[in-house]
Amino acid sequence: MPAKPEILKLSPIANSRLFHIEAMELRFSNGVERRYERLMTGGNGAVMVVAINEYNQVVLIREYAAGLDDYVLTLPKGLIDPGEDALTAANRELQEEAGFAADQLTFIKQLTAAPNYMGHRIDVILARSLSVSKLEGDEPEPLEVVLWPLDNLPELFARDEFSEGRSIAALCLVEQLLRTT
Amino acid sequence: MPAKPEILKLSPIANSRLFHIEAMELRFSNGVERRYERLMTGGNGAVMVVAINEYNQVVLIREYAAGLDDYVLTLPKGLIDPGEDALTAANRELQEEAGFAADQLTFIKQLTAAPNYMGHRIDVILARSLSVSKLEGDEPEPLEVVLWPLDNLPELFARDEFSEGRSIAALCLVEQLLRTT
Repeated sequence: MPAKPEILKLSPIANSRLFHIEAMELRFSNGVERRYERLMTGGNGAVMVVAINEYNQVVLIREYAAGLDDYVLTLPKGLIDPGEDALTAANRELQEEAGFAADQLTFIKQLTAAPNYMGHRIDVILARSLSVSKLEGDEPEPLEVVLWPLDNLPELFARDEFSEGRSIAALCLVEQLLRTT
Repeated sequence: MPAKPEILKLSPIANSRLFHIEAMELRFSNGVERRYERLMTGGNGAVMVVAINEYNQVVLIREYAAGLDDYVLTLPKGLIDPGEDALTAANRELQEEAGFAADQLTFIKQLTAAPNYMGHRIDVILARSLSVSKLEGDEPEPLEVVLWPLDNLPELFARDEFSEGRSIAALCLVEQLLRTT
Protein backbone atom coordinates (compact mmCIF):
# COMPACT_ATOMS: atom_id res chain seq x y z
CA MET A 1 0.00 0.00 0.00
CA PRO A 2 1.52 3.40 -0.94
CA ALA A 3 1.96 6.16 1.64
CA LYS A 4 -1.19 8.27 1.98
CA PRO A 5 -1.29 11.36 -0.25
CA GLU A 6 -0.20 14.59 1.35
CA ILE A 7 -3.06 17.03 1.90
CA LEU A 8 -1.82 20.33 0.44
CA LYS A 9 -4.99 22.28 1.14
CA LEU A 10 -8.55 21.83 2.45
CA SER A 11 -11.15 24.46 1.52
CA PRO A 12 -14.85 24.60 2.33
CA ILE A 13 -16.91 24.98 -0.87
CA ALA A 14 -20.52 25.05 0.28
CA ASN A 15 -22.57 24.38 3.40
CA SER A 16 -26.26 23.67 3.79
CA ARG A 17 -28.23 22.46 6.81
CA LEU A 18 -27.36 18.84 5.95
CA PHE A 19 -24.32 18.92 3.68
CA HIS A 20 -20.76 20.22 3.92
CA ILE A 21 -18.76 20.15 0.69
CA GLU A 22 -14.99 20.42 0.94
CA ALA A 23 -12.23 20.63 -1.69
CA MET A 24 -8.96 18.75 -1.12
CA GLU A 25 -5.72 19.47 -2.93
CA LEU A 26 -3.68 16.27 -2.75
CA ARG A 27 -0.17 15.20 -3.71
CA PHE A 28 0.10 11.44 -4.18
CA SER A 29 3.31 9.62 -3.20
CA ASN A 30 4.28 9.42 -6.90
CA GLY A 31 4.19 13.23 -7.12
CA VAL A 32 0.88 13.51 -9.01
CA GLU A 33 -1.31 16.35 -7.72
CA ARG A 34 -5.12 16.24 -7.88
CA ARG A 35 -8.08 18.23 -6.65
CA TYR A 36 -10.86 16.18 -5.01
CA GLU A 37 -14.23 17.14 -3.62
CA ARG A 38 -15.83 15.35 -0.72
CA LEU A 39 -18.87 15.50 1.51
CA MET A 40 -18.07 15.72 5.21
CA THR A 41 -20.27 14.70 8.11
CA GLY A 42 -20.66 16.49 11.34
CA GLY A 43 -22.39 14.88 14.24
CA ASN A 44 -21.92 11.65 16.08
CA GLY A 45 -22.42 9.04 13.38
CA ALA A 46 -25.46 6.94 12.59
CA VAL A 47 -26.93 3.51 13.23
CA MET A 48 -28.78 0.93 11.14
CA VAL A 49 -30.75 -1.73 13.01
CA VAL A 50 -31.24 -5.39 12.07
CA ALA A 51 -33.97 -6.41 14.51
CA ILE A 52 -34.91 -10.10 14.55
CA ASN A 53 -38.03 -11.29 16.36
CA GLU A 54 -38.86 -14.66 17.94
CA TYR A 55 -40.24 -15.92 14.60
CA ASN A 56 -36.91 -15.26 12.85
CA GLN A 57 -38.38 -12.30 10.99
CA VAL A 58 -36.48 -9.07 10.39
CA VAL A 59 -38.20 -5.73 11.06
CA LEU A 60 -38.34 -3.53 7.93
CA ILE A 61 -39.90 -0.12 7.44
CA ARG A 62 -41.38 1.48 4.35
CA GLU A 63 -40.63 5.21 4.25
CA TYR A 64 -40.40 8.11 1.84
CA ALA A 65 -36.84 8.57 0.50
CA ALA A 66 -36.30 12.12 -0.73
CA GLY A 67 -33.22 11.20 -2.80
CA LEU A 68 -35.35 8.96 -5.01
CA ASP A 69 -38.69 10.79 -4.51
CA ASP A 70 -40.30 7.43 -3.80
CA TYR A 71 -41.19 5.04 -0.99
CA VAL A 72 -38.54 2.43 -0.20
CA LEU A 73 -38.36 -0.67 1.98
CA THR A 74 -35.37 -0.43 4.30
CA LEU A 75 -34.00 -1.03 7.80
CA PRO A 76 -34.71 1.35 10.71
CA LYS A 77 -31.86 3.84 10.97
CA GLY A 78 -30.97 7.31 12.13
CA LEU A 79 -28.43 9.68 13.57
CA ILE A 80 -26.81 9.14 16.97
CA ASP A 81 -27.83 11.99 19.30
CA PRO A 82 -25.23 13.97 21.25
CA GLY A 83 -24.19 12.02 24.36
CA GLU A 84 -25.82 8.81 23.10
CA ASP A 85 -23.90 5.62 22.32
CA ALA A 86 -24.60 3.55 19.21
CA LEU A 87 -26.52 0.78 20.98
CA THR A 88 -28.80 3.26 22.77
CA ALA A 89 -29.39 5.12 19.51
CA ALA A 90 -30.27 1.83 17.78
CA ASN A 91 -32.82 0.94 20.46
CA ARG A 92 -34.35 4.44 20.31
CA GLU A 93 -34.62 4.44 16.49
CA LEU A 94 -36.15 0.95 16.56
CA GLN A 95 -38.83 2.17 18.99
CA GLU A 96 -39.47 5.41 17.09
CA GLU A 97 -39.59 3.96 13.59
CA ALA A 98 -40.91 0.43 14.12
CA GLY A 99 -42.45 0.26 17.61
CA PHE A 100 -40.13 -2.37 19.09
CA ALA A 101 -37.56 -2.28 21.88
CA ALA A 102 -34.70 -4.79 22.13
CA ASP A 103 -33.19 -6.37 25.25
CA GLN A 104 -30.13 -7.60 23.38
CA LEU A 105 -28.06 -5.27 21.17
CA THR A 106 -24.84 -6.26 19.40
CA PHE A 107 -22.48 -4.17 17.26
CA ILE A 108 -21.82 -5.91 13.92
CA LYS A 109 -19.74 -3.62 11.67
CA GLN A 110 -19.25 -0.01 10.64
CA LEU A 111 -20.23 0.54 7.00
CA THR A 112 -19.45 3.37 4.61
CA ALA A 113 -21.80 4.52 1.84
CA ALA A 114 -19.53 5.95 -0.86
CA PRO A 115 -16.06 6.40 0.67
CA ASN A 116 -14.53 7.89 -2.49
CA TYR A 117 -16.41 11.14 -1.92
CA MET A 118 -18.24 10.87 1.43
CA GLY A 119 -17.06 10.58 5.02
CA HIS A 120 -20.37 9.10 6.21
CA ARG A 121 -20.25 5.99 8.39
CA ILE A 122 -23.07 3.94 9.89
CA ASP A 123 -22.90 1.29 12.63
CA VAL A 124 -24.87 -1.89 11.97
CA ILE A 125 -26.51 -3.10 15.19
CA LEU A 126 -28.18 -6.50 15.65
CA ALA A 127 -31.23 -6.23 17.94
CA ARG A 128 -32.85 -9.27 19.55
CA SER A 129 -35.27 -10.12 22.40
CA LEU A 130 -37.85 -7.67 21.04
CA SER A 131 -40.94 -6.36 22.80
CA VAL A 132 -43.60 -3.88 21.71
CA SER A 133 -42.59 -0.34 22.71
CA LYS A 134 -43.38 2.85 20.79
CA LEU A 135 -41.50 6.15 21.11
CA GLU A 136 -42.46 9.34 19.28
CA GLY A 137 -39.94 10.24 16.59
CA ASP A 138 -39.65 13.11 14.12
CA GLU A 139 -41.22 11.28 11.17
CA PRO A 140 -43.69 13.36 9.14
CA GLU A 141 -46.04 10.36 8.93
CA PRO A 142 -46.30 6.92 10.58
CA LEU A 143 -44.00 4.38 8.90
CA GLU A 144 -45.34 1.08 7.64
CA VAL A 145 -43.68 -1.87 9.41
CA VAL A 146 -43.04 -5.06 7.43
CA LEU A 147 -41.86 -8.31 9.05
CA TRP A 148 -39.79 -10.32 6.59
CA PRO A 149 -38.63 -13.97 7.08
CA LEU A 150 -34.86 -14.02 7.48
CA ASP A 151 -34.72 -17.31 5.55
CA ASN A 152 -36.11 -15.62 2.43
CA LEU A 153 -33.64 -12.79 1.83
CA PRO A 154 -33.16 -13.54 -1.90
CA GLU A 155 -36.78 -12.56 -2.62
CA LEU A 156 -36.33 -9.33 -0.64
CA PHE A 157 -33.09 -8.47 -2.45
CA ALA A 158 -34.80 -9.01 -5.82
CA ARG A 159 -37.32 -6.22 -5.09
CA ASP A 160 -36.71 -2.84 -6.74
CA GLU A 161 -37.97 -1.06 -3.60
CA PHE A 162 -35.22 -2.73 -1.52
CA SER A 163 -32.16 -1.17 -3.14
CA GLU A 164 -29.96 0.36 -0.45
CA GLY A 165 -26.50 -1.23 -0.53
CA ARG A 166 -25.97 -0.73 3.21
CA SER A 167 -29.28 -2.47 4.07
CA ILE A 168 -28.47 -5.48 1.88
CA ALA A 169 -24.96 -5.61 3.38
CA ALA A 170 -26.30 -5.40 6.95
CA LEU A 171 -28.74 -8.28 6.38
CA CYS A 172 -26.04 -10.42 4.74
CA LEU A 173 -23.64 -9.82 7.63
CA VAL A 174 -26.26 -10.76 10.21
CA GLU A 175 -27.48 -13.79 8.26
CA GLN A 176 -23.85 -14.97 7.93
CA LEU A 177 -23.25 -14.46 11.67
CA LEU A 178 -26.42 -16.31 12.72
CA ARG A 179 -25.68 -19.15 10.30
CA THR A 180 -22.25 -19.75 11.82
CA THR A 181 -23.02 -19.30 15.54
CA MET B 1 -48.29 2.55 0.99
CA PRO B 2 -49.46 6.19 1.25
CA ALA B 3 -49.65 8.45 -1.82
CA LYS B 4 -46.31 10.13 -2.52
CA PRO B 5 -45.87 13.56 -0.93
CA GLU B 6 -46.66 16.52 -3.12
CA ILE B 7 -43.56 18.51 -4.12
CA LEU B 8 -44.47 22.13 -3.32
CA LYS B 9 -41.12 23.59 -4.35
CA LEU B 10 -37.64 22.54 -5.50
CA SER B 11 -34.78 25.02 -5.07
CA PRO B 12 -31.09 24.63 -5.87
CA ILE B 13 -28.98 25.40 -2.77
CA ALA B 14 -25.39 24.89 -3.88
CA ASN B 15 -23.44 23.44 -6.79
CA SER B 16 -19.85 22.30 -7.01
CA ARG B 17 -18.03 20.34 -9.72
CA LEU B 18 -19.24 17.06 -8.19
CA PHE B 19 -22.24 17.88 -6.01
CA HIS B 20 -25.66 19.44 -6.54
CA ILE B 21 -27.63 20.20 -3.38
CA GLU B 22 -31.36 20.81 -3.70
CA ALA B 23 -34.04 21.78 -1.18
CA MET B 24 -37.49 20.15 -1.41
CA GLU B 25 -40.63 21.55 0.21
CA LEU B 26 -42.99 18.58 0.62
CA ARG B 27 -46.57 18.08 1.73
CA PHE B 28 -47.22 14.52 2.91
CA SER B 29 -50.60 12.88 2.25
CA ASN B 30 -51.55 13.49 5.91
CA GLY B 31 -51.08 17.24 5.41
CA VAL B 32 -47.73 17.54 7.24
CA GLU B 33 -45.29 19.86 5.45
CA ARG B 34 -41.51 19.39 5.67
CA ARG B 35 -38.36 20.80 4.11
CA TYR B 36 -35.82 18.20 2.92
CA GLU B 37 -32.37 18.52 1.39
CA ARG B 38 -31.00 16.07 -1.11
CA LEU B 39 -27.98 15.49 -3.29
CA MET B 40 -28.81 15.09 -6.97
CA THR B 41 -26.74 13.29 -9.60
CA GLY B 42 -26.19 14.40 -13.09
CA GLY B 43 -24.63 12.10 -15.63
CA ASN B 44 -25.46 8.64 -16.81
CA GLY B 45 -25.20 6.57 -13.67
CA ALA B 46 -22.37 4.37 -12.46
CA VAL B 47 -21.27 0.73 -12.42
CA MET B 48 -19.66 -1.57 -9.85
CA VAL B 49 -17.98 -4.73 -11.16
CA VAL B 50 -17.86 -8.16 -9.52
CA ALA B 51 -15.27 -9.90 -11.70
CA ILE B 52 -14.71 -13.61 -11.02
CA ASN B 53 -11.75 -15.43 -12.55
CA GLU B 54 -11.28 -19.11 -13.43
CA TYR B 55 -9.99 -19.84 -9.90
CA ASN B 56 -13.23 -18.52 -8.34
CA GLN B 57 -11.44 -15.42 -7.06
CA VAL B 58 -13.00 -11.97 -7.12
CA VAL B 59 -10.97 -9.00 -8.40
CA LEU B 60 -10.57 -6.27 -5.75
CA ILE B 61 -8.67 -3.01 -5.91
CA ARG B 62 -7.02 -1.00 -3.17
CA GLU B 63 -7.39 2.73 -3.79
CA TYR B 64 -7.31 6.06 -1.98
CA ALA B 65 -10.79 7.12 -0.79
CA ALA B 66 -10.96 10.89 -0.28
CA GLY B 67 -14.10 10.68 1.89
CA LEU B 68 -12.17 8.70 4.52
CA ASP B 69 -8.68 10.07 3.71
CA ASP B 70 -7.43 6.49 3.66
CA TYR B 71 -6.80 3.51 1.39
CA VAL B 72 -9.70 1.08 1.08
CA LEU B 73 -10.22 -2.33 -0.46
CA THR B 74 -13.19 -2.25 -2.81
CA LEU B 75 -14.63 -3.37 -6.14
CA PRO B 76 -13.71 -1.68 -9.44
CA LYS B 77 -16.30 1.00 -10.21
CA GLY B 78 -16.84 4.25 -12.02
CA LEU B 79 -19.16 6.54 -13.92
CA ILE B 80 -20.86 5.54 -17.17
CA ASP B 81 -19.57 7.77 -19.98
CA PRO B 82 -22.00 9.60 -22.30
CA GLY B 83 -23.25 7.20 -24.99
CA GLU B 84 -21.94 4.14 -23.12
CA ASP B 85 -24.16 1.37 -21.77
CA ALA B 86 -23.63 -0.12 -18.31
CA LEU B 87 -22.02 -3.37 -19.51
CA THR B 88 -19.52 -1.51 -21.72
CA ALA B 89 -18.71 0.87 -18.86
CA ALA B 90 -18.15 -2.10 -16.52
CA ASN B 91 -15.74 -3.74 -18.96
CA ARG B 92 -13.87 -0.45 -19.46
CA GLU B 93 -13.54 0.25 -15.73
CA LEU B 94 -12.38 -3.32 -15.10
CA GLN B 95 -9.61 -2.86 -17.69
CA GLU B 96 -8.63 0.61 -16.43
CA GLU B 97 -8.63 -0.17 -12.72
CA ALA B 98 -7.67 -3.85 -12.56
CA GLY B 99 -6.18 -4.84 -15.94
CA PHE B 100 -8.78 -7.45 -16.89
CA ALA B 101 -11.35 -7.64 -19.68
CA ALA B 102 -14.45 -9.85 -19.48
CA ASP B 103 -16.15 -11.83 -22.25
CA GLN B 104 -19.29 -12.37 -20.20
CA LEU B 105 -21.08 -9.46 -18.51
CA THR B 106 -24.38 -9.77 -16.62
CA PHE B 107 -26.50 -7.08 -14.94
CA ILE B 108 -27.30 -8.07 -11.33
CA LYS B 109 -29.11 -5.20 -9.59
CA GLN B 110 -29.23 -1.43 -9.29
CA LEU B 111 -28.18 -0.30 -5.81
CA THR B 112 -28.65 3.00 -4.02
CA ALA B 113 -26.17 4.41 -1.48
CA ALA B 114 -28.26 6.55 0.88
CA PRO B 115 -31.68 7.05 -0.75
CA ASN B 116 -33.03 9.26 2.05
CA TYR B 117 -30.83 12.13 0.88
CA MET B 118 -29.08 11.05 -2.34
CA GLY B 119 -30.31 10.21 -5.83
CA HIS B 120 -27.17 8.21 -6.67
CA ARG B 121 -27.62 4.76 -8.21
CA ILE B 122 -25.03 2.18 -9.26
CA ASP B 123 -25.48 -0.90 -11.45
CA VAL B 124 -23.84 -4.08 -10.16
CA ILE B 125 -22.36 -6.06 -13.07
CA LEU B 126 -21.05 -9.63 -12.86
CA ALA B 127 -18.01 -10.10 -15.13
CA ARG B 128 -16.71 -13.56 -16.11
CA SER B 129 -14.41 -15.16 -18.72
CA LEU B 130 -11.60 -12.77 -17.82
CA SER B 131 -8.42 -12.14 -19.77
CA VAL B 132 -5.50 -9.78 -19.15
CA SER B 133 -6.16 -6.40 -20.81
CA LYS B 134 -5.06 -3.00 -19.54
CA LEU B 135 -6.58 0.35 -20.51
CA GLU B 136 -5.29 3.71 -19.31
CA GLY B 137 -7.70 5.37 -16.86
CA ASP B 138 -7.67 8.67 -15.00
CA GLU B 139 -6.27 7.28 -11.75
CA PRO B 140 -3.59 9.45 -10.11
CA GLU B 141 -1.52 6.33 -9.31
CA PRO B 142 -1.65 2.63 -10.28
CA LEU B 143 -4.15 0.69 -8.17
CA GLU B 144 -3.13 -2.42 -6.27
CA VAL B 145 -5.11 -5.46 -7.46
CA VAL B 146 -6.04 -8.13 -4.91
CA LEU B 147 -7.55 -11.50 -5.90
CA TRP B 148 -9.80 -12.79 -3.12
CA PRO B 149 -11.33 -16.32 -2.91
CA LEU B 150 -15.09 -16.07 -3.33
CA ASP B 151 -15.55 -18.91 -0.83
CA ASN B 152 -13.95 -16.80 1.93
CA LEU B 153 -16.11 -13.67 1.95
CA PRO B 154 -16.64 -13.64 5.77
CA GLU B 155 -12.93 -12.91 6.31
CA LEU B 156 -13.07 -10.09 3.75
CA PHE B 157 -16.20 -8.58 5.33
CA ALA B 158 -14.51 -8.65 8.75
CA ARG B 159 -11.73 -6.31 7.54
CA ASP B 160 -11.99 -2.64 8.49
CA GLU B 161 -10.58 -1.61 5.09
CA PHE B 162 -13.51 -3.36 3.33
CA SER B 163 -16.38 -1.22 4.60
CA GLU B 164 -18.44 -0.02 1.63
CA GLY B 165 -22.04 -1.22 1.98
CA ARG B 166 -22.55 -1.38 -1.77
CA SER B 167 -19.45 -3.58 -2.25
CA ILE B 168 -20.53 -6.03 0.46
CA ALA B 169 -24.04 -6.07 -1.02
CA ALA B 170 -22.72 -6.69 -4.55
CA LEU B 171 -20.59 -9.64 -3.43
CA CYS B 172 -23.48 -11.14 -1.42
CA LEU B 173 -25.83 -10.86 -4.39
CA VAL B 174 -23.34 -12.55 -6.74
CA GLU B 175 -22.42 -15.26 -4.22
CA GLN B 176 -26.14 -15.96 -3.71
CA LEU B 177 -26.72 -16.12 -7.48
CA LEU B 178 -23.77 -18.45 -8.14
CA ARG B 179 -24.77 -20.70 -5.21
CA THR B 180 -28.26 -21.25 -6.63
CA THR B 181 -27.47 -21.61 -10.35
